[in-house]
Amino acid sequence: MSLKAIIYKNGEVEILDQLLLPEQSKYIKIKGVEDGWNAIRKMQVRGAPAIAIVGCLSLAVEVQDKNFDHKDSFRQEIEEKLNFLVTARPTAVNMKMAAENLIEMVQTLTDDGTVTVDEMKHRFLAAVENMLEKDTFDNMALGKYGADKILSNTSNGDAVQVLTHCNTGSLATAGYGTALGVIRKLFEQNRLEHVYCTETRPYNQGARLTAYELVHDKIPATLIMDSMVASLFKSRCVSAAIVGADRVAANGDTANKIGTYQIAVLAKYHRVPFYVAAPFTSIDPNIPSGDCITIEERPDREMTHIGDYRIAAEGINCWNPAFDVTPNELITGIITEIGVFEPHELRERAGGRGTGK
Amino acid sequence: MSLKAIIYKNGEVEILDQLLLPEQSKYIKIKGVEDGWNAIRKMQVRGAPAIAIVGCLSLAVEVQDKNFDHKDSFRQEIEEKLNFLVTARPTAVNMKMAAENLIEMVQTLTDDGTVTVDEMKHRFLAAVENMLEKDTFDNMALGKYGADKILSNTSNGDAVQVLTHCNTGSLATAGYGTALGVIRKLFEQNRLEHVYCTETRPYNQGARLTAYELVHDKIPATLIMDSMVASLFKSRCVSAAIVGADRVAANGDTANKIGTYQIAVLAKYHRVPFYVAAPFTSIDPNIPSGDCITIEERPDREMTHIGDYRIAAEGINCWNPAFDVTPNELITGIITEIGVFEPHELRERAGGRGTGK
Repeated sequence: MSLKAIIYKNGEVEILDQLLLPEQSKYIKIKGVEDGWNAIRKMQVRGAPAIAIVGCLSLAVEVQDKNFDHKDSFRQEIEEKLNFLVTARPTAVNMKMAAENLIEMVQTLTDDGTVTVDEMKHRFLAAVENMLEKDTFDNMALGKYGADKILSNTSNGDAVQVLTHCNTGSLATAGYGTALGVIRKLFEQNRLEHVYCTETRPYNQGARLTAYELVHDKIPATLIMDSMVASLFKSRCVSAAIVGADRVAANGDTANKIGTYQIAVLAKYHRVPFYVAAPFTSIDPNIPSGDCITIEERPDREMTHIGDYRIAAEGINCWNPAFDVTPNELITGIITEIGVFEPHELRERAGGRGTGK
Repeated sequence: MSLKAIIYKNGEVEILDQLLLPEQSKYIKIKGVEDGWNAIRKMQVRGAPAIAIVGCLSLAVEVQDKNFDHKDSFRQEIEEKLNFLVTARPTAVNMKMAAENLIEMVQTLTDDGTVTVDEMKHRFLAAVENMLEKDTFDNMALGKYGADKILSNTSNGDAVQVLTHCNTGSLATAGYGTALGVIRKLFEQNRLEHVYCTETRPYNQGARLTAYELVHDKIPATLIMDSMVASLFKSRCVSAAIVGADRVAANGDTANKIGTYQIAVLAKYHRVPFYVAAPFTSIDPNIPSGDCITIEERPDREMTHIGDYRIAAEGINCWNPAFDVTPNELITGIITEIGVFEPHELRERAGGRGTGK
């Protein structure tokens, strides 16, 4: 069984504190929106799908036992708090899209005269609970599409070696994972020879989290440093690089963990297919291209310290962009729960505005 | 003044223990060959030129107060111990070449009937002492050639931004540095706008050592992660990448710290000139190409721990090549103390065998 990073039972939410991994497996309670915002901000939960689920669940926990006299005061509270939750990690699109959908839903219910305030609250809570289940289900579909796509280029029955970056597994989603879901599916089908995972500095999600999941699930895996990708591609036969996405623009440009863009460049140079695996909700049809994506810059301390231990010279300046943008021309395919698309096919499927590149 | 990492005075050798940087600046005594071998092996001293100097000085310290009855017993001891010192870090060519030169010298002196055993010892010690002085002098010449070359592509008076990898400064050489010597020279000439240095996982020579030197010398600098090189090239105007070399083959293929090859690929993609800076002794005319260079693989623990602190999941496999090979076609120029060469020009200058590529 793969790890459970988000537990929702009897109206209570607990999450695995990912800052403590791999040293400690400790669950923390999320008692409301303030806790949810902090857990997202401090990266106790990370990964765009997991952020959205934990954010929305934190709001569900906060409102479930509250009484609302009017539908409009309920609607107003939902809207305000969802907008606040979006600010915790601005680059991750899933939280923003979940917020927009839920706000639209409560607005519709507010306008519908046949719905009572209690019924409205009930429907809101059901919608949030459904996100958790749907995410795992979607990931399994995505995993199947991705595995089929990667295997379509190999001889019948051959096993493949793949590279992944950052963490996109059970610890980044409700369960199973996106890029790591594809890898899990290859493994389940007995078609995975080996997976290489990058350390993913500065936050080491690969070494701490992906490696932890791979060891946990007994998937044959090797850790490499971010600086070893080109050497890996040159010296070992790698069939594909598969990464996740925090946000995909309408033209296929993809924002993901820092280091993704350079893996894509290195993949192209070494003729290794490069796939982005993401739930369809990560595609934002309102963003025409990667140029419009704001890249979050994070504190220097992430680079200069491991815990309390200083690993960089005192007084050195740092540049710490959390994400980068991979242009669509470097992406072989975008793997989603409804199929695999070439970047140029996205605009039509995601219902974006305009058709120009 | 730039840092002194190797101090040789009154027949005693002390080196700055680089494993303790940046937390502590502590010098340790090298009392003989055993200490020298261990300091090189444990990476208390690193950088190909510094390794050769510390190795040879450790032998000088060991033999200086010993009496030798016969020239042949002196010759034999020198030969054995130099060959032993070469085994501490097999990829670094400078130690091997210094050993070969010194062995040849003592052989010649042994054969020369006019030379006494005391005179032979004296000449051996003088040759070793000379290495320390010559290395700094050569680096300053190299720095000047490199700075001139990089500035030859810029408008008169414009300052440049450059990227460097690993540590090639005062801490890797007798002083001044190779790639970092070029950067120092640009700074002295008031033509350096900014230098970016990579962290250089897994041993963090960039964050610990290069950043330490840059802060020490007040050179305007910013630390980046190894995963940020492509983003840097894309978003900021970088005039050149400059790296060191552990060994350069006759065709210009260059073995250097892991991550160098991928910086070269990324530089090519972003049209950033890529320079290797190395003393001429790093060029090994007997190695026809990079395919013949053995890449040292180092312990997993370097990747999974920082000091005693575990940073990777327990049980994960690791791949830890210490070096990679950058093929000559990705190298714009090789900067040495006698000039800047294109890779194909090396064979003739270094006196290698054959002319084919």
